[in-house]
Amino acid sequence: MSPTAEEFDVVVLGGGPGGYAAALYGASAGLSIAMVEEQRVGGTCLHRGCIPAKELLQTAEVLRTIRGAAEFGVKASEPSLDIGVSQVRKHQVIDKLTKGLESLLKGRKVTVVPGRGTLAPDGHTIVVGVREADGSEVVRELHGRNVVLATGSAPRALPGLDFDGERILSSDHVLELPEVPERVAVIGGGAIGCEFASFLIDAGSDVTLLEALPQVLTGVDQQVAQVVARAFTKRGVKIETAVKVGGVDRTDAGLELRYEGKNGEQRLPVDVVVVSVGRRPLSEGAGLEEAGVKIDERGFVAVDGNMRTSVDGVYAVGDLVATPQLAHVAFAEAIVAIKTMLGEDPAPVEYDKVPWGIYCHPEVGFCGLTEAQAKEQGYDVVTSVHRWGGNSRALIMDETEGMVKVVAEKDGALLGVHVAGPWATELIAEGYLSVNWEATPADLGLLIHAHPTLSENFGESVLALTGRSLHG
Amino acid sequence: MSPTAEEFDVVVLGGGPGGYAAALYGASAGLSIAMVEEQRVGGTCLHRGCIPAKELLQTAEVLRTIRGAAEFGVKASEPSLDIGVSQVRKHQVIDKLTKGLESLLKGRKVTVVPGRGTLAPDGHTIVVGVREADGSEVVRELHGRNVVLATGSAPRALPGLDFDGERILSSDHVLELPEVPERVAVIGGGAIGCEFASFLIDAGSDVTLLEALPQVLTGVDQQVAQVVARAFTKRGVKIETAVKVGGVDRTDAGLELRYEGKNGEQRLPVDVVVVSVGRRPLSEGAGLEEAGVKIDERGFVAVDGNMRTSVDGVYAVGDLVATPQLAHVAFAEAIVAIKTMLGEDPAPVEYDKVPWGIYCHPEVGFCGLTEAQAKEQGYDVVTSVHRWGGNSRALIMDETEGMVKVVAEKDGALLGVHVAGPWATELIAEGYLSVNWEATPADLGLLIHAHPTLSENFGESVLALTGRSLHG
Repeated sequence: MSPTAEEFDVVVLGGGPGGYAAALYGASAGLSIAMVEEQRVGGTCLHRGCIPAKELLQTAEVLRTIRGAAEFGVKASEPSLDIGVSQVRKHQVIDKLTKGLESLLKGRKVTVVPGRGTLAPDGHTIVVGVREADGSEVVRELHGRNVVLATGSAPRALPGLDFDGERILSSDHVLELPEVPERVAVIGGGAIGCEFASFLIDAGSDVTLLEALPQVLTGVDQQVAQVVARAFTKRGVKIETAVKVGGVDRTDAGLELRYEGKNGEQRLPVDVVVVSVGRRPLSEGAGLEEAGVKIDERGFVAVDGNMRTSVDGVYAVGDLVATPQLAHVAFAEAIVAIKTMLGEDPAPVEYDKVPWGIYCHPEVGFCGLTEAQAKEQGYDVVTSVHRWGGNSRALIMDETEGMVKVVAEKDGALLGVHVAGPWATELIAEGYLSVNWEATPADLGLLIHAHPTLSENFGESVLALTGRSLHG
Repeated sequence: MSPTAEEFDVVVLGGGPGGYAAALYGASAGLSIAMVEEQRVGGTCLHRGCIPAKELLQTAEVLRTIRGAAEFGVKASEPSLDIGVSQVRKHQVIDKLTKGLESLLKGRKVTVVPGRGTLAPDGHTIVVGVREADGSEVVRELHGRNVVLATGSAPRALPGLDFDGERILSSDHVLELPEVPERVAVIGGGAIGCEFASFLIDAGSDVTLLEALPQVLTGVDQQVAQVVARAFTKRGVKIETAVKVGGVDRTDAGLELRYEGKNGEQRLPVDVVVVSVGRRPLSEGAGLEEAGVKIDERGFVAVDGNMRTSVDGVYAVGDLVATPQLAHVAFAEAIVAIKTMLGEDPAPVEYDKVPWGIYCHPEVGFCGLTEAQAKEQGYDVVTSVHRWGGNSRALIMDETEGMVKVVAEKDGALLGVHVAGPWATELIAEGYLSVNWEATPADLGLLIHAHPTLSENFGESVLALTGRSLHG
């Protein structure tokens, strides 16, 4: 350890969800913490991911509400979108959350070091070049009894489709759109691709959604994925699955996207291509390998269930490790890492039971096993599907697409809960609790849901698995 | 038993929530059921209560969304309300739900007998005058091994303020308003009064809300009630508490409501007075007392924890008994009654832990003990309050009024969860589960909430009670 190094209980490399959660939780447990982040704290999630995406999707919700207002007896003119104003509000929300985060970190006496950090070969020192107000750079060395690596991820590109930020866009670029493009191809029908397609169709674009696999939202329960696909089609999104993208040609009128689909070779004229085919971990160039931190063949830092890397006292969390790339998973991993340092022997995150939220319209929320996964794992599976058409609040809201689907072991506990429809991303909280507490339909059937609520549909679904029922 | 009587396992008197839940759940358990109802099935809740109220409050939500649209970059004209159209949609929703209910009852082979039923002195026969298609009346006698009384309730009037349906309105009348009144006094600041005040202010009325007690929403946690009071005041509702209503005088310009308030005698000129001071049980005129069914001094049918009345084999559920007048409580009571008949020895409904939802803006959802109740009961109380200003989704939605408040026993289980703010009526489902499973903050602190969701605010609140925290 260098004699000039500052000493901390924990040094965190990266100020995104995994990093700031480690800092905040660790500080609340009494540890002294330094956190190194080149940009403003908050990471991808706050600046280029979840938050800006949901802000734009909220704008889409406002548009849809106005378009459907007449049915409720509310007259207003056809709405128009000024996306410049939406972007201003988005930045205000991000700014407010960032300031809140900065103030929390300050309140907990976390030393936030602005700069690009590198792990020194000793594995416990982060070296940071900090730019001073006068433009000069000062090198600071931060030594931690423990180190948490949380450098996050970046959008993955497709060969032949390099991001240019103008016509070929990553998620970073879509979230900063200065105007609504006329014709868009979204490549990748996963959670993020579906969110973009949903926003863009509501914003007025002509949208084609291309997916390499046989259906959109692979990994999501098939019935739920079908709800989204049908709803998208109804709203005008052209979905093509089992597609192999060839490349793009620039024409006078814009772009032509080449791909092979069910109908052979296609050339799709578009103005903009959005590539959302996943994110790659940012594990290079920060000295990790040089310090002996093992990195797997896909670039993820290898960790055990306690988030320990191959170097003693060095942890990794968030998008940098090969677990679900979700901010709340990063939070949970950060807590496991801190508890491990404290010798509290925490239980590892149960990745197959974490909640997922997809904020397209209709929304999707799920946790636990899909019906197919449960069968694959050999369970004797029972399911209960309750569509929204019978739920009074969904009818009142005019949001009756989708369902609650409960997957359970016959005469056993709940294995999974899958929701498509209104406020699915919030409703899943109750499903998550039930799955993670290994509740049985009999346990849950005793419980009461307020009437009239959307949450009743979960109640009806589990009650039906007891062999008796109320509304369905 | 009369030789002409039709025989059933259960005869249910009343087709509201308690009645139809008994019928549906009993039928799903294999019992033969007859249900007697004079009007269309569904009762107060479906035709004159929860459902139409929430439909109008959804209309108010549409109005508010449009008024706030510009902030999101969505331009539309100032909205106007044609309440006639709102009423048409409301009736369509009610009709759809009623048909759904009728079809469920039919599917489960419940004999629905349309007519006014009376309990015969034997306590087990319901005598019904059924009007035939040709106008003649046929008397049917339905004999049940068990009888469930579920005749419901009606709005309570105030002395000197008899309902006329034109200017002095009960909840029944408000829900059928043909136009938005200019100046309204709402008497009664309970859940229903607050819902009406919230709708009317959004619809454009000038609203004064009068409450006899020192605050609105008595019984609701005081901090939560204050959130609603402040939000109402900000939106222009004039709240007067500790008020004693004297009466009303008819003038050329409308009405003058006389009351004594903090500033002495007041005369308030209004166009319409809405009286929402509770509901009285409909226990008279149906032969209950004559058959030996004990009725308490306030008119409620006396029952034990298994919903058994003083007559063997006769049960009572719903608004007819002195328990919270909520449709979902009636559902739970009906299930307890049916299970009791089946000899299954069910646990009584835990009334102090049922969920409550109030659909005003901001919404309120709660269950379990308030902070004041917990202290009164001698608990060593800790609380955790997390306001919406720090929650990313609430900021995105621009709905930051209110909070999640968790009340727990020091080093013990959760005692109550109280939410004011966006989707509180849905979020309470998770709080309800936690309180009813007697979860501790340590149990709950291990759990993950999807980011960015409103449900995270509950997660943060319970996590903070473990002595450590993430965002707050």
